[in-house]
Amino acid sequence: MRSPFLLKKYMENFEVTILGCGCALPTNRHFNASQVVSTRGKHFLIDCGEGTQIQFRKNKLHFGRLGHIFISHLHGDHFFGLIGLISTLNLLGRTAQLYIHAPAPLKEILKPQLDFFCPEMNYEVILVEIDTTLHQLIYEDRSIEVWSLPLHHKMPCSGFLFKEKPYKRHLRPEKIKFFNIPNYALNDIKEGADYTLPDGTLLPNSLLTTDAEKSRSYAYCSDTIVQPQLAKYLQNVDVLYHEATFGKDKEALAYATYHSTAEQAAQFAKECHAGKLLIGHYSARYEDENVLLSEAQCIFQNTMLTSENDVIKL
Amino acid sequence: MRSPFLLKKYMENFEVTILGCGCALPTNRHFNASQVVSTRGKHFLIDCGEGTQIQFRKNKLHFGRLGHIFISHLHGDHFFGLIGLISTLNLLGRTAQLYIHAPAPLKEILKPQLDFFCPEMNYEVILVEIDTTLHQLIYEDRSIEVWSLPLHHKMPCSGFLFKEKPYKRHLRPEKIKFFNIPNYALNDIKEGADYTLPDGTLLPNSLLTTDAEKSRSYAYCSDTIVQPQLAKYLQNVDVLYHEATFGKDKEALAYATYHSTAEQAAQFAKECHAGKLLIGHYSARYEDENVLLSEAQCIFQNTMLTSENDVIKL
Repeated sequence: MRSPFLLKKYMENFEVTILGCGCALPTNRHFNASQVVSTRGKHFLIDCGEGTQIQFRKNKLHFGRLGHIFISHLHGDHFFGLIGLISTLNLLGRTAQLYIHAPAPLKEILKPQLDFFCPEMNYEVILVEIDTTLHQLIYEDRSIEVWSLPLHHKMPCSGFLFKEKPYKRHLRPEKIKFFNIPNYALNDIKEGADYTLPDGTLLPNSLLTTDAEKSRSYAYCSDTIVQPQLAKYLQNVDVLYHEATFGKDKEALAYATYHSTAEQAAQFAKECHAGKLLIGHYSARYEDENVLLSEAQCIFQNTMLTSENDVIKL
Repeated sequence: MRSPFLLKKYMENFEVTILGCGCALPTNRHFNASQVVSTRGKHFLIDCGEGTQIQFRKNKLHFGRLGHIFISHLHGDHFFGLIGLISTLNLLGRTAQLYIHAPAPLKEILKPQLDFFCPEMNYEVILVEIDTTLHQLIYEDRSIEVWSLPLHHKMPCSGFLFKEKPYKRHLRPEKIKFFNIPNYALNDIKEGADYTLPDGTLLPNSLLTTDAEKSRSYAYCSDTIVQPQLAKYLQNVDVLYHEATFGKDKEALAYATYHSTAEQAAQFAKECHAGKLLIGHYSARYEDENVLLSEAQCIFQNTMLTSENDVIKL
């Protein structure tokens, strides 16, 4: 059994597992787009290219912890793994609802496949269409929010911003004990409230608590022409994944195909004051992606090339 | 450049590459069903589970040599890799037609996906529906025939028999020279004709030629309850692939789910007087598939467990 200490650490993890970071063509080096954001014991899947379920298993992620899937757009390399994954979850006896968030026409595309391939489902698949023109809250639970990011690609496309909700402040046990503060008041204090003693003395929150951990955030921007106007939503994001399909030699091609170059991704990370930039969605033409890394690092030093099965801890 | 000798050898190859031999659930051990029959420089794909295109590349098979795909039935584990493969071939600039042979309702299922995901195709996908109630010729070229095999599964399902056409007999050059036989007569002689000299002397074919190589055959039977009545079509088949989803402990389950046990596959191979039996489509419950191998070998010694990336030369 996991010890309480390890369990706490596990619950407080915020990490991203790269299942696939290739472009439209799967190669021997890369699977199609897919990654998992894991936090507080939950997995959130972003995009689901062919082979996602295979990679999910290979990375020893638990299907049972997956409740929500976010699909950026309905190009095959971001979507073709979905029906297989849904079908496998059914075979595994899943009963919990599964939410799939994606741009229209998600329902028209997926519903006939579900009706034919999964006629007897043990669980419900709930299809939620994303408005790709808006930056809005599309999911939240007690600890996290997911916001859409309007991207600009050949078809309606959305990025995703995962933001932890603020952590509670830490009580200073010696102060709590010294002032004999009752249990019922502690939650308010952890949330920032001051406390007034029975004699009317006001104890400021800063005397009773220390700072909470910083809330972390992760943004996923793929596939898109770089969108500088999104930087205002992503200020100080801890980790930014941005597609870098091409190098600067192919800037015109990037624009024509609604993609970005490594330099553009790096410039955007700079404008966001991101902590770290992950790049991916590499065109199959780059046998050595370090070309893309170098170009990005000239502008934004803390850039990292993603590879399958990388785990990035925030 | 390939030498003429190597090219001849290559053209005369008849081999099967296993891309996936797992059951409905992909595992870390097995991909979903898919294999390639290669002969005379052509690849024929049988079934196309998720990940097939990845495995195809990994095995260094050439997409350009693929002209016909045969799908046994429309369960996802035999079919979900198809749309990704079609899409990739388009991205690679294919212009040659691609034939997909599968049971109905192939067109109703695949056509809407093609229309949405591949709206601008460089090449034509020709969908050919197989009558799964008949044993009939469904493909032929100069050197090979493919015959359907009516299987019995939860949904309409067909197996496939690949048969080389008879090879031509080998001329005995010393006899041809001695009797001064003209060039125009040689093709008939290679096909078995006798030859009459100008003086009326009949030269029997057996004097002028030696035996041709034996034509080879390969049969694929998955997914199905074992069908002994098919043995008459498969007498002396060189290699038989038969599903062996379960061991004998699960015979009732095999029947209930329209599958076969390893023993049943072996008994069938015996009735076919097959040269070799390949088994696969293993249920994910068997961590060690040697259990299945042992059960089969008690009945049919020359049985082999298939694994991904195996190449079986006929």
